[in-house]
Amino acid sequence: MPSSRSTRRRENLEAVAGNGLLDRRSLLRGGAAFAAAMTGYVLSDSAAAQQLADDPWSAATGSLLTDYEVPARFEKRVARTLSNPKGEARTSHARTPHHLLNGTITPNGLHFIISHSGNPDIDPDKHRLVIHGLVQRPLVFTVDALMRYPMVSRMAFVECGGNGALLASKEPLNVNVQALHGLVSCAEWTGVMLSTLLGETGIDPKAKWLIAEGADSLAVSRSVPMSKALDDAMIALYQNGERLMPGNGYPMRLLLPGWEGNMNIKYLRRLELADAPAMSFYESRTYAQILPGGKAYQFYFLQEVKSFISHPSPGLKLSGPGLYEISGVAYSGNGRISKVMVSADGGKTWAPAALQEPVNPKAFTRFRAPWRWDGGPAILQSRAWDEAGNAQPTRAEIIARRGETTTIPNVLAFPSQHYNTLTSWGVERSGEVKHVYA
Amino acid sequence: MPSSRSTRRRENLEAVAGNGLLDRRSLLRGGAAFAAAMTGYVLSDSAAAQQLADDPWSAATGSLLTDYEVPARFEKRVARTLSNPKGEARTSHARTPHHLLNGTITPNGLHFIISHSGNPDIDPDKHRLVIHGLVQRPLVFTVDALMRYPMVSRMAFVECGGNGALLASKEPLNVNVQALHGLVSCAEWTGVMLSTLLGETGIDPKAKWLIAEGADSLAVSRSVPMSKALDDAMIALYQNGERLMPGNGYPMRLLLPGWEGNMNIKYLRRLELADAPAMSFYESRTYAQILPGGKAYQFYFLQEVKSFISHPSPGLKLSGPGLYEISGVAYSGNGRISKVMVSADGGKTWAPAALQEPVNPKAFTRFRAPWRWDGGPAILQSRAWDEAGNAQPTRAEIIARRGETTTIPNVLAFPSQHYNTLTSWGVERSGEVKHVYA
Repeated sequence: MPSSRSTRRRENLEAVAGNGLLDRRSLLRGGAAFAAAMTGYVLSDSAAAQQLADDPWSAATGSLLTDYEVPARFEKRVARTLSNPKGEARTSHARTPHHLLNGTITPNGLHFIISHSGNPDIDPDKHRLVIHGLVQRPLVFTVDALMRYPMVSRMAFVECGGNGALLASKEPLNVNVQALHGLVSCAEWTGVMLSTLLGETGIDPKAKWLIAEGADSLAVSRSVPMSKALDDAMIALYQNGERLMPGNGYPMRLLLPGWEGNMNIKYLRRLELADAPAMSFYESRTYAQILPGGKAYQFYFLQEVKSFISHPSPGLKLSGPGLYEISGVAYSGNGRISKVMVSADGGKTWAPAALQEPVNPKAFTRFRAPWRWDGGPAILQSRAWDEAGNAQPTRAEIIARRGETTTIPNVLAFPSQHYNTLTSWGVERSGEVKHVYA
Repeated sequence: MPSSRSTRRRENLEAVAGNGLLDRRSLLRGGAAFAAAMTGYVLSDSAAAQQLADDPWSAATGSLLTDYEVPARFEKRVARTLSNPKGEARTSHARTPHHLLNGTITPNGLHFIISHSGNPDIDPDKHRLVIHGLVQRPLVFTVDALMRYPMVSRMAFVECGGNGALLASKEPLNVNVQALHGLVSCAEWTGVMLSTLLGETGIDPKAKWLIAEGADSLAVSRSVPMSKALDDAMIALYQNGERLMPGNGYPMRLLLPGWEGNMNIKYLRRLELADAPAMSFYESRTYAQILPGGKAYQFYFLQEVKSFISHPSPGLKLSGPGLYEISGVAYSGNGRISKVMVSADGGKTWAPAALQEPVNPKAFTRFRAPWRWDGGPAILQSRAWDEAGNAQPTRAEIIARRGETTTIPNVLAFPSQHYNTLTSWGVERSGEVKHVYA
């Protein structure tokens, strides 16, 4: 009976979870029933031509092509936020505006940066990478030498261990996704596998750690277990096709896919193989969490499974009831994302989101779910799982495990590092979106 | 017997094809035997520290972080070449420098452009997309309206039908890969499937074509069969995560994956459904090839299977005998690349190249093969196959099919459009690389 099939189809659209979460495949098939709900508006055929008549840019020759292009002047707000714009003697952050981006790649102009002493102005012809210590033959590599080696390309996210730390606050802070999650980005990195270079130097069997050091003025260094060095560590030379950006380690960085951002040493100049970690300044102080008992949790390498919704999110006001796409990114240092669930009612009911193919390991996966906003209050959440079986922890779970902080948390202290819990966006009747807890 | 195993391994490395093509998996395993052949040089452990002592950039605080980053000042040569830098009243080209890039993504600053009247300065809040003609209800969409629709992301190359046209010259022109193949690029595009919007407008069964028109001052338009419109056509809003670049159609373009670049209408403002093609200026003159008999080959949509080597290539001089990576890109409008073969002896013998995973349909696939240059003459070639079973034609094959031109070919005329034959790079004893025919 056609009428009952039609009814079932409509029910299917509205039934995947509470408060308006819809079935994506049915929606993509389209149909006139949706036109009124979208913000496209109907017009007569003669009115169509009039819509297109008078734009000044259609009446004049456009601007000259340039040798290196930047975004349109209307997109100035699509910018990183800077925590230290005058370059005072403290750490600088540049955060990615996830609410203004879409897809799975962070464009190079907007990749996040954390810098302890600015971007060094390195002449690539003079830069050297030395591999020494517990090796059979120490070697030094110029950039030109590395350019001759076999390379690989891979998508990989890089995330600061402190990204999301503001979620450890007892009360929800009135901030947007860029402030909460702007210290993670994703790019296609191309370079030489570290295992290939270590095949050249040979490895003394006593070597258990590799101490990586940058050419920045503070010589930031971190110790890396040899197992990671021989697994998927890369000497990255290219970022999204072009040479690394200055803020991301030009002319070369260590890429440790899925591991804490600061370990992906930028301006890489030295890899020293050793039988023990260096206990360097950054690993024994800045990036070591003090646990409640007073001990330090020093080697918390992995960036665990996480997701957040970028659309809608604070600053993207809903223009009225009707259909919207909920989308965001999910990622895990353990490998591929296996599932993302979304909720529009603060976690009471959940629906599976579509995952954009290809789902790459240790990289952003864009998830999407259609939602019909009825104009009432809603709380949007996403929750991700990875192929290793890990679930992103709910707020209740992470508090039960780690305790709670009071006001603005110390982003470098336990429990706010590696704080990978859910993010909740409250949608108000006005269409405003605010950070809430649920 | 260990010695015979060792011998076999060495033979395997040298035996995959003539003139130095090596086995990649063996090479990636590394080993001290290769160190001398690479340009990394051996040093004592105490000499290592000295290599790193005196760089001025390690002694000073670096530069400030910026809200939108551009490449390092040492990378100024990584730029598009401009065919019309003063903006005279003719077509402008900006070509991608493939010899200076790696990976599979073209960064947004360097994506190729062809423009007939410059980049229009479009206010996205005032721009409209109208869908009308043989539809059930004409609709007009603002950018904000499209932002609410379900989106998809996909990697896709865009290529001018005239890219590679210089290969139709009777004598090899003394040009580099940017001049020969700079009118193709690849990006992750995100937007709304056209089929979703046509589901909203409804389609009159008489509609067989869709006429797409841009908001540039020449209102460039092309006719697209409805079958493509309903297959994988997209209204693209984002390019590599951020909004489209001005030269690539900001605020929106039609994306027709795998089809001739000019059909991917930029600054898209109108889609008119019709029962016949519009026979527009660009499709009946500029982008219609005149065949030898005088008829026009008007609707040659597909960009067929193709590959070229970017490293080594003219301008990248080899610094001496030894190991190098041969790499380049392959792509096909028919789908995925299934195989790329490389030759170092001008096509006498061939070895399979490694294909970088994931191999995405209608997108760049980076291929790589290790090569030991013995210092003698060599001719490097690549040849690609796609999953539909098509082989990139050799020069002899394409000439047999289409005939030959004499001097610099008319890039808009048959046979030089869609000229997807092999590219040959001759390596001279000096290490210089030149464009040759083989």
